Amino acid sequence: MSKILEEVLNANACYVADFGDKASLALPPARHFAILTCMDARLDPAKYAGLVEGDAHVIRNAGGRASDDAIRSLVISYKLLGTREWFVIHHTDCGMELFTNEIMSDLLSSSLKTASIDESGWHDCGEGSGCSDGKYINWLTIRKQEESVLEDVKRIRNHSLVPREIPIYGYIYDVKTGCLVEVPAATAAGAVA
Amino acid sequence: MSKILEEVLNANACYVADFGDKASLALPPARHFAILTCMDARLDPAKYAGLVEGDAHVIRNAGGRASDDAIRSLVISYKLLGTREWFVIHHTDCGMELFTNEIMSDLLSSSLKTASIDESGWHDCGEGSGCSDGKYINWLTIRKQEESVLEDVKRIRNHSLVPREIPIYGYIYDVKTGCLVEVPAATAAGAVA
Repeated sequence: MSKILEEVLNANACYVADFGDKASLALPPARHFAILTCMDARLDPAKYAGLVEGDAHVIRNAGGRASDDAIRSLVISYKLLGTREWFVIHHTDCGMELFTNEIMSDLLSSSLKTASIDESGWHDCGEGSGCSDGKYINWLTIRKQEESVLEDVKRIRNHSLVPREIPIYGYIYDVKTGCLVEVPAATAAGAVA
Repeated sequence: MSKILEEVLNANACYVADFGDKASLALPPARHFAILTCMDARLDPAKYAGLVEGDAHVIRNAGGRASDDAIRSLVISYKLLGTREWFVIHHTDCGMELFTNEIMSDLLSSSLKTASIDESGWHDCGEGSGCSDGKYINWLTIRKQEESVLEDVKRIRNHSLVPREIPIYGYIYDVKTGCLVEVPAATAAGAVA
């Protein structure tokens, strides 16, 4: 057993020992909202947004981007589990600012042995989506936080499956202070129409 | 300002007031691992796996599924930010067990007014991916946790961009106890080749 696996299981045992009345939490988020944010290790949405177990959906990926998969999750969050307000929260010093699609392609092709890229490459289409030979990968890199938050709020707002009555708030988390800083243009774009 | 927005910003102010030395955390995860898990409100990966800020990447979507976007995030996590062990953690009583692709389609088409579905429908292809008219949405529903964990670990293990030396562990989080329960077949499938 790896050291990390052992540590995680030990930590879990402590959590279980103090689980209390969390066993009775309901499936739908009690506070009816969802946060889309980055996978970055420095971000703890429960801490920076004041969540306890049962409160809110938290969706995370590289960059906190409004990918098709994030939108799949948000639509389920709303339609089946009743969330009614959404936050898009990117952050300062994000790894996604450090590279571009081109750099990522170079990195991967220069490390065939470890990345095991195969001859047909990798494409960004869902299984059964009807894609045939797409070789394009959109890594969803970020040039500037204010722009990426605005772009993602707009993408969600304009999505055909997203109801207009859900407000979407755009924020940037500052990793140096812990502060959530609004992106006013994004929140405006995400306002109820 | 909505009540939720006000509460989140108030909670954030408290976090900022007690931010301490977290300002100096490095971008790469200090403990070099990543967790892929569900967005479910009852799950707090930091608590159930013993994480503090800076420790590990946390990727979350509806179901904790190994979607293309989750794999995008994992590849970035490994290639740019140095994670070397990954967990796939689904959970009991998951919302994704409650419906099927067919039910979701029905739900959406019977609520055009709120879902604002447009005539061309929604498809699950990334922008610029080369998809043309795909109308298929894979909601990545779950029939049985053990199966979904195994399927997702296998999907990651067999992905052309995932290096073989990263072990992938398959677990189910029990929402009634807080306990992480291994799916041995999944961990075996995710073992280093």
